[in-house]
Amino acid sequence: MRTTGGFTLPGEAGCEALTLRLAERWGADVIRDSDGTQLSDAILNAGYEIYSTICPIRGHNTWAKEHPDMLQQCFLCTLPCVPAGERAEIPLTESFFSEQFRINDSQDALRLWQVFDRTEDRLLDRAQWAYEKDAARVVVRDAVPFHSYTVSFLCYRVWEEISMYNHVTNGWTEEHLMPIDPIYPEAQEYLLRWMDEWCAAHPATGTVRFTSLFYNFVWIWGAHERDRSLFTDWASYDFTVSPRALALFEREYGYALTAEDFVNGGALHPTHMPGTPQKADWMAFVGRFVRAFGRKLVDIVHAHGKKAFVFYDDSWVGLEPYSGSFGEFGFDGLIKCVFSGYEARLCAGVDVPVHELRLHPYLFPTGLGGAPTFMEGGDPAADAMEYWLRVRRALLRAPIDRIGLGGYLHLTEAYPDFVDAVAHIADEFRAIAALHREGAPWCMKPRVAVLHHWGRLRSWSLSGHFHETDQNDLIHLNEALAGLPFEVEFLNFDDVLGGALQNIDVVLNAGFAGSAWSGGGRWTQPAVVEAVLRFVHEGGTFIGVGEPSAVEGRAAFFRMAPALGVDEDTGARQCHGKWRFSVDPCASSLPEGSFVRPRSRYMRGIPFLTDGAARVYKAEAGLPTLTAHAFGVGAGVYFASFENTPENARLLFEMIVDPLRRNPRPDFWSDDPMVECAWFPACGKLAVVNNGVCARQAAVSLPGGCAQTVLLQAHELRIMTLER
Amino acid sequence: MRTTGGFTLPGEAGCEALTLRLAERWGADVIRDSDGTQLSDAILNAGYEIYSTICPIRGHNTWAKEHPDMLQQCFLCTLPCVPAGERAEIPLTESFFSEQFRINDSQDALRLWQVFDRTEDRLLDRAQWAYEKDAARVVVRDAVPFHSYTVSFLCYRVWEEISMYNHVTNGWTEEHLMPIDPIYPEAQEYLLRWMDEWCAAHPATGTVRFTSLFYNFVWIWGAHERDRSLFTDWASYDFTVSPRALALFEREYGYALTAEDFVNGGALHPTHMPGTPQKADWMAFVGRFVRAFGRKLVDIVHAHGKKAFVFYDDSWVGLEPYSGSFGEFGFDGLIKCVFSGYEARLCAGVDVPVHELRLHPYLFPTGLGGAPTFMEGGDPAADAMEYWLRVRRALLRAPIDRIGLGGYLHLTEAYPDFVDAVAHIADEFRAIAALHREGAPWCMKPRVAVLHHWGRLRSWSLSGHFHETDQNDLIHLNEALAGLPFEVEFLNFDDVLGGALQNIDVVLNAGFAGSAWSGGGRWTQPAVVEAVLRFVHEGGTFIGVGEPSAVEGRAAFFRMAPALGVDEDTGARQCHGKWRFSVDPCASSLPEGSFVRPRSRYMRGIPFLTDGAARVYKAEAGLPTLTAHAFGVGAGVYFASFENTPENARLLFEMIVDPLRRNPRPDFWSDDPMVECAWFPACGKLAVVNNGVCARQAAVSLPGGCAQTVLLQAHELRIMTLER
Repeated sequence: MRTTGGFTLPGEAGCEALTLRLAERWGADVIRDSDGTQLSDAILNAGYEIYSTICPIRGHNTWAKEHPDMLQQCFLCTLPCVPAGERAEIPLTESFFSEQFRINDSQDALRLWQVFDRTEDRLLDRAQWAYEKDAARVVVRDAVPFHSYTVSFLCYRVWEEISMYNHVTNGWTEEHLMPIDPIYPEAQEYLLRWMDEWCAAHPATGTVRFTSLFYNFVWIWGAHERDRSLFTDWASYDFTVSPRALALFEREYGYALTAEDFVNGGALHPTHMPGTPQKADWMAFVGRFVRAFGRKLVDIVHAHGKKAFVFYDDSWVGLEPYSGSFGEFGFDGLIKCVFSGYEARLCAGVDVPVHELRLHPYLFPTGLGGAPTFMEGGDPAADAMEYWLRVRRALLRAPIDRIGLGGYLHLTEAYPDFVDAVAHIADEFRAIAALHREGAPWCMKPRVAVLHHWGRLRSWSLSGHFHETDQNDLIHLNEALAGLPFEVEFLNFDDVLGGALQNIDVVLNAGFAGSAWSGGGRWTQPAVVEAVLRFVHEGGTFIGVGEPSAVEGRAAFFRMAPALGVDEDTGARQCHGKWRFSVDPCASSLPEGSFVRPRSRYMRGIPFLTDGAARVYKAEAGLPTLTAHAFGVGAGVYFASFENTPENARLLFEMIVDPLRRNPRPDFWSDDPMVECAWFPACGKLAVVNNGVCARQAAVSLPGGCAQTVLLQAHELRIMTLER
Repeated sequence: MRTTGGFTLPGEAGCEALTLRLAERWGADVIRDSDGTQLSDAILNAGYEIYSTICPIRGHNTWAKEHPDMLQQCFLCTLPCVPAGERAEIPLTESFFSEQFRINDSQDALRLWQVFDRTEDRLLDRAQWAYEKDAARVVVRDAVPFHSYTVSFLCYRVWEEISMYNHVTNGWTEEHLMPIDPIYPEAQEYLLRWMDEWCAAHPATGTVRFTSLFYNFVWIWGAHERDRSLFTDWASYDFTVSPRALALFEREYGYALTAEDFVNGGALHPTHMPGTPQKADWMAFVGRFVRAFGRKLVDIVHAHGKKAFVFYDDSWVGLEPYSGSFGEFGFDGLIKCVFSGYEARLCAGVDVPVHELRLHPYLFPTGLGGAPTFMEGGDPAADAMEYWLRVRRALLRAPIDRIGLGGYLHLTEAYPDFVDAVAHIADEFRAIAALHREGAPWCMKPRVAVLHHWGRLRSWSLSGHFHETDQNDLIHLNEALAGLPFEVEFLNFDDVLGGALQNIDVVLNAGFAGSAWSGGGRWTQPAVVEAVLRFVHEGGTFIGVGEPSAVEGRAAFFRMAPALGVDEDTGARQCHGKWRFSVDPCASSLPEGSFVRPRSRYMRGIPFLTDGAARVYKAEAGLPTLTAHAFGVGAGVYFASFENTPENARLLFEMIVDPLRRNPRPDFWSDDPMVECAWFPACGKLAVVNNGVCARQAAVSLPGGCAQTVLLQAHELRIMTLER
């Protein structure tokens, strides 16, 4: 049964027939251009709604060259220089990619440079160092031999990162695009005029698609081929710095930020770490600016009778959809590109009229990590199905309005399998969307909260796509949760102190000690520990993964050890004997093929049982890897690590619904981890999906203790009406 | 060729013929008794020198029962109690072995008890808690719900640990022996009289063998069978506590120690960690007492015309042979039991007239971890050879005067292979000892220093035997070094600041961050970093293993990163790209079969190259595991971990003599890691050993570039005279 609508097709001038044929085949109602493609009049006038892509801060090289002091900037910190004598000569740019950065040694900027003795963590007085412009270095004259010196300096970015990416990935040879900084009134004036003129010049455009906003992901590239990627963080605010922004901040906040507040000894402040109060202030400051100026552009778009959608992928700064202030932009739609299910949940949960997913693969010759896609060696149909299976299970839980693709449509011509796969995906998407329109799917009782430093702001995602953050257990947990039948919230520690756990049944905390994901120093607050322990004692479940609630400085490393019955020996307890244990008999009822690796990345030591009372469900090399422990009438569950697989997602499900293995199986749940289902009570329909590549037969439990047996082909989605 | 002398035989009353036959067979010149055996007159009068075993603080149960308040004591800290309401009832002894401990709730003792809110790290005021004697618990009445409360309390130890060990290991059923504390004047008076009477009653005894001294290893046992071993530390001072000692300390030092100074939140202060200045003061205080009172006992022994030897194994407190004050005891000999080569080096390096090794296996039915030895399933001859091969390579480097055995001699009757093996070992020992008597073996040029918190005090050993501390890289390194042809010193950080590196070529630092072995907080001292960096820059080699020089709080985690060219990402740098590298071509010249595991126990993160200049010799899963990096005219070598094997000992040797792979092979060195040699220039003899169980042919390099080929049988020791 072919259906239409809710599909955005990337058109391509010169491929009009293909464009219109695939629009028909895939049931498209919207045609868009992409970075690198245009739409011709034949396409614009074919009766489809038109999305047009804009990237406000690049593509203005003429203006940028006339205003070289209004390019975007950032602080860089040199590698440490360790003099053997009393003279330290510190090269500034030696380790950085010369095509990306240009030193800003204006008077305004030089005032902001800092030279540190990193051995003593001591800021040098300005009189102790001199900048030698011609040699592009700083010289410290009375250095302490064998101390480490660094220079933090300001520089312009002369090549915008998405332009860098497209050149590198697709062999583009066009002029490098420069990013202009809208913090400057002249730049704002220019951009507002440009936006207005652009709208006037594009009468066929119904929706302006902001493909990025102002400040894109932070990519600091290195000089050396073997060390090209110095720093990568999608959520970072490091590329928002300028003397003007710093001055405005100081005026508003009453204190000044310094280079060190950003470079942090060269470590910067990656999103995986909790950052500082100063960083939080800066994020709030920049966020307000981005939303205020973004709103002005959106208003212009609206004034031209067009809609404004934003693509949330390359540009996160100020645009975070869960900041609580996203609505201030006035966007009409949010488009999220998705490799994974959690990205679909991220999109679905945002308060915005239209939620759209841009599926992968992108129509480019190469995909992730340079792997072939639409070229020799690629199999884009298989890629599309793989991504779709990840996303589809999330779509069963939360509604999405639209899907679409991006890139060069002509690349699909050699891949009829891909064309078929997308047609199939589009039909499945529309079938699922139709279920949601009849009423929300049923959720099981436990309401799950993921607790971390960022809370709601970083709902569902960490700081990039799955493959960019997959050394963190939490992204695996997010991905598993994305397709499980629970309400999921993301809370921070202030939420906990504010009583948010009253509406929660299960708290999940996952990360290494000190990270933003485990919570870092917030666990030193007694009130936090009290609140979460009380929550468990009164019947909640605390699921800790990796080094949950861990922080140095007290007798217990895991502050939630009383609930978990597990703590970690980081070396200081190697003279302490550990409880011996046997694996609990209940372990045999856990999903076959599920596993827990004994160590999460960046975990220091080895777990041990604190009071011997935890039930050990899994163990490896004599160490507990999965345990459950009663505390009051609640439970603490410890996972040494978590890696998302269908079986492990099922394992997580079981620990959420029944950590102490007391209850019978829940309703509307299949007996096969490869098969998941969603019950839509309003229409009486049960959607069952086979996430695997083999046919499966599964029994879905129904209320009253009976079960429905379903035989599903590979990948199949089956929607059944249940007798009531 | 049979030789005699330098051998101590454990005799056994009732087995006189066996005793004298084996004394003849093994070339014994001394016969001793053991814990659990006596010597009869027939043995005492057979013309051998006699050692008699005493254990001063146990075996006085009659006196002990009359003075129950003069038993040895310690502080114990309960498990945390987490009340859900405002009343916390904290059981004191529930988790401790009731046969080992008895609460000391005397007035003097109660003053020293402490109750802590561990959530806030807050000491409770005495008015906030009450001791309920009958229930053996402490009650906190106005507790904060969900905070963790502990009680630190004083208790007597009513079962001495060696007595516990012998009961448990050998099924002894005699009365439990109680440890008396010589800190009390009455106990001192009693012990001095007893020592005098003992000497008078044992006219045949030539040497009094102090099998332990006053304060033995710390073993805190648990109540539960699955949790029997709560804490084990041979070097700990936790069993030296008493109200009297604390009062004397306060009078001398002008400040009082509290329970918390010992229990440290339940973590105690294991020797693997650096401890506190208070702990250092306490160790010095107790050490002086032990030496002063020990000297009085030794003086009595001397007054009776006997010698006093001490066995360094179960009793470390104050007896540390490298404390710098060991000579104050006036002992005539030091006996060390040895499983490993490093223990032989420990013994050999002590300034004392006679150095004796007590070989393993001990003549007991069971050995390590309860494994069968002289019983069904045991192979004591194989055990003896295995231990001997470990020890023999160390004996080639440093002289030992005597060897011996201990235990029940009758057990050997069923094991003629063992009798043969010991005869062979005794002959080899005497051959090696004879070489040393002609002059010291040749050492290669690099002088090696192991740098850690304890320095010389803990030369060679950590805090127990190899198998007790083998999760630490350093014990593996010590064992490898024990048989390598280098001068080895153990330095602490004050030594470094005092200029000790002037006489050193290679510094070795090995341990996890924060441990005593890596150095913990001492690396925060700029002067330490300066001194070690300068040492490398001027030509030294710094070999760092695990998390060398690591400490939080600065830009670099490894403070020696400038020398190593390697640092560790503990999670905060996961957004930072890492240098890609290829394994250096020189890697092919490293010992075949050598390996470096990618992670040392308690290592947090992943190593990365700081400046891309380190040569990577070994790597695993894309991570460098063995690197060398030029710094000035010296080098930094990084091992991710170190496990001792013949091949890895050779790898260490090569990194010590030639980290940057510049030089030809040294003289007097074999081309086979299984074969080691020692050159005794004074007598012109070359000793070559095969440490393996197969015959080996090796070429030993000689001065002038020629080589001597040697074919050795399994285990063989060959002593050759070289033409000169």
